[in-house]
Amino acid sequence: MIIKDIKTLREIIKGEKRRGSSIGFVPTMGYLHEGHLSLIREAKKENDFVVLSIFVNPIQFGPNEDLEQYPRDIKRDTELAKAAGCDLIFNPEVDEVFPKPLKTKVIVEELTEPLCGRSRPTHFQGVTTIVSKLFNMVAADRAYFGQKDAQQAAVIIKMAEDLNFDIAITVCPIVREEDGLAMSSRNVMLNKEERKQALALYGSLELAEDMIVKEGILDPQTIIAKMEDFISDYRLCQIDYIEILDFENLQEIKEIQGKILIALAVKLGPTRLIDNKIMGV
Amino acid sequence: MIIKDIKTLREIIKGEKRRGSSIGFVPTMGYLHEGHLSLIREAKKENDFVVLSIFVNPIQFGPNEDLEQYPRDIKRDTELAKAAGCDLIFNPEVDEVFPKPLKTKVIVEELTEPLCGRSRPTHFQGVTTIVSKLFNMVAADRAYFGQKDAQQAAVIIKMAEDLNFDIAITVCPIVREEDGLAMSSRNVMLNKEERKQALALYGSLELAEDMIVKEGILDPQTIIAKMEDFISDYRLCQIDYIEILDFENLQEIKEIQGKILIALAVKLGPTRLIDNKIMGV
Repeated sequence: MIIKDIKTLREIIKGEKRRGSSIGFVPTMGYLHEGHLSLIREAKKENDFVVLSIFVNPIQFGPNEDLEQYPRDIKRDTELAKAAGCDLIFNPEVDEVFPKPLKTKVIVEELTEPLCGRSRPTHFQGVTTIVSKLFNMVAADRAYFGQKDAQQAAVIIKMAEDLNFDIAITVCPIVREEDGLAMSSRNVMLNKEERKQALALYGSLELAEDMIVKEGILDPQTIIAKMEDFISDYRLCQIDYIEILDFENLQEIKEIQGKILIALAVKLGPTRLIDNKIMGV
Repeated sequence: MIIKDIKTLREIIKGEKRRGSSIGFVPTMGYLHEGHLSLIREAKKENDFVVLSIFVNPIQFGPNEDLEQYPRDIKRDTELAKAAGCDLIFNPEVDEVFPKPLKTKVIVEELTEPLCGRSRPTHFQGVTTIVSKLFNMVAADRAYFGQKDAQQAAVIIKMAEDLNFDIAITVCPIVREEDGLAMSSRNVMLNKEERKQALALYGSLELAEDMIVKEGILDPQTIIAKMEDFISDYRLCQIDYIEILDFENLQEIKEIQGKILIALAVKLGPTRLIDNKIMGV
């Protein structure tokens, strides 16, 4: 069932709640891959009724980013979502979501500054604002996000806590292609050679893990330098950032200990990919 | 019934909703007066179960404002609220509302710039952030605000619309003392002479209305100048602002027409009072 308007969405969800159904919510920008489907399956395990939103949110794209090029295929998405256990797809037009000029922003400070916040300065306020709107539209009991966007997950957990959204947030593991590339809707934008070289992301994360676990190296800068070295062999890869942070507050650390996030962003031609590893040391 | 914690509040409200009750919500900072009570009565008319929050919200006070001096009397408030039809008072401690450092802000742009926004630059983001939190805690069907804080009402209506809060917002008329002074919790901070001179606010609004309605004067600056003249006779009154704006967008206007807001703020000693008139011309 594909719903395009907020009023009908609310009526259906209120009906489900009256019947005692719990509501699981998976917000996406569509062009579904196994990562998204794993979120839908997890939502279906824990809830009676699963809502998937598909909305390519303009306010989380910067002026020179790939809003227009972002891949879309609602027909294929519908089939995949249904097979994974989705009960309702909410797929509104931009005018339904933003009927008047938007003057309200939801801003999370500090957590949004490192990593993707540096090269995409207005990205996260676009994410937190649309997620607030969607949370209020869907009124779910539980929402599901992928660890691939680890910073996004941390930001949304903090936002939901700070604003007292009555919703439990689950972060599900990264789903990878057989060769290790993290699933992403943007992978389809890579040409054949870029696709090969995209392995630099996962390869460098594996290298970092080995350095920490097998060699006992605990200096973040040493590890980052080795990761940069590793990626420099992939000539199409241009590093946007590599950072090692404590996972909860996304602050820089001087020594690796506790729960850490190793995260990187790499550009391959016009396509920007991200990947990460969360480790307890 | 006074509830201090969010968990119990939610359980009670969910129980009421399961029984089919509609929920009305009146957010206040307490020290209730007839203005607040009119909101509770209106809420009780339109809803089965009325929640009043009493919380002196620190994040809407600036560093040199009257947070510590803000009057409090929970015992008296409880009796008045009950008599007016309130079913539940939510009166949390600061630690319950802000258990960890707050990193999330809800910001409404443009509407928050004129009027009180000029002299209280962080006031409205404190209001919109706490109201977002309270809306998420209470999950009411309808919320009630007083027109005395006309800019606050306009800002909250815009915020609720922009963020798709599933709540209807009603703005209730200003309640006045017999001599015309708008009811305010801060009136109690006035000494006897200040209390007399506080009539300058309502007097100047009456004068403005007469100029528009009886004399047909449509130039905002002429009216504002006359209001300033009028208030200058009250030597304890120090004008913070007098503005005439279109009501919906709170933008300055060159000529009086349509629905307008005449609003002013005046300081009497340490106490800052506001008042306004909304007119359709």
